[in-house]
Amino acid sequence: MARYGIKNSTAIQVDSTIFFSGMTAVDLETGLTIDGSTADHARFTLELFADILADLGLSLDHVVKVNAHLTDLDDFAGWNDVFLDVFDAPYPCRTTVGAPLIVGKIEIELTAATEPRR
Amino acid sequence: MARYGIKNSTAIQVDSTIFFSGMTAVDLETGLTIDGSTADHARFTLELFADILADLGLSLDHVVKVNAHLTDLDDFAGWNDVFLDVFDAPYPCRTTVGAPLIVGKIEIELTAATEPRR
Amino acid sequence: MARYGIKNSTAIQVDSTIFFSGMTAVDLETGLTIDGSTADHARFTLELFADILADLGLSLDHVVKVNAHLTDLDDFAGWNDVFLDVFDAPYPCRTTVGAPLIVGKIEIELTAATEPRR
Repeated sequence: MARYGIKNSTAIQVDSTIFFSGMTAVDLETGLTIDGSTADHARFTLELFADILADLGLSLDHVVKVNAHLTDLDDFAGWNDVFLDVFDAPYPCRTTVGAPLIVGKIEIELTAATEPRR
Repeated sequence: MARYGIKNSTAIQVDSTIFFSGMTAVDLETGLTIDGSTADHARFTLELFADILADLGLSLDHVVKVNAHLTDLDDFAGWNDVFLDVFDAPYPCRTTVGAPLIVGKIEIELTAATEPRR
Repeated sequence: MARYGIKNSTAIQVDSTIFFSGMTAVDLETGLTIDGSTADHARFTLELFADILADLGLSLDHVVKVNAHLTDLDDFAGWNDVFLDVFDAPYPCRTTVGAPLIVGKIEIELTAATEPRR
């Protein structure tokens, strides 16, 4: 993505809500999309978000909504398995649809809160 | 959807905003997508949301934003008719785009508030 | 769009967050989609939003999140150039995906706050 000069903010807080930019499975050091399946991309992207959340003093437990775009909806089961593995109950809200993407097999956008889900 | 083990939260509140998971015209008792047109799917899905909102002490009058994904944008007029029929003025904000969906002809995601629109 | 009887609210505020309807490069006086490239459409749409924000006593500096749908992701670079030109650092959060649209080459949905980005 570096070639595009991406300069979005990663996260912006308004009141108790934190809005995030959509992320894909791009290695931030090399700028290259990782290899692997949609499930691999989903796990990599959520781990990126976990690091971003940690920098804000938050965790994946603070995520209230997940918006996912998949290039191939036949891979939904793999994405769902990762979702259930990475998040703990009570799970976030979620919407998943299909879409062409600039890079990667899944684009994930999060909305988080300053308090954990309960 | 039951075969996927869907465990999203239906709704999560942050301050005065309530975020929802996207919903489609799936009969929650049978797990099957209903028959009918995009307009039929839209009406069924908004009625599901009306029930969910009622359980939270809210109604469709509390919805501030509607994000709709249609598998066939040629059906936009039917979706718009249902939108204008189910909601009352002042209407919610809305974004409608096309997208492949896992099930159904329209996926609807809501954002609501603890106070009704005015 | 007039032929559809579009009656969405343009913007609704909840606490310090202002949610907007998605907009495209439709001339509101003629109801016609403008000519031009995806970049032209993006600039026109963001100028529409700047006017709407001004009516609310806000500006593009108050935008915290931008959700863009492009009919042709090959035009991402043009959209990104407009994004970097119209907004000032620190930039809003952003998610861009591909999608069929009812009209226009890019649909843009904003989320804003009552305080400017910093």
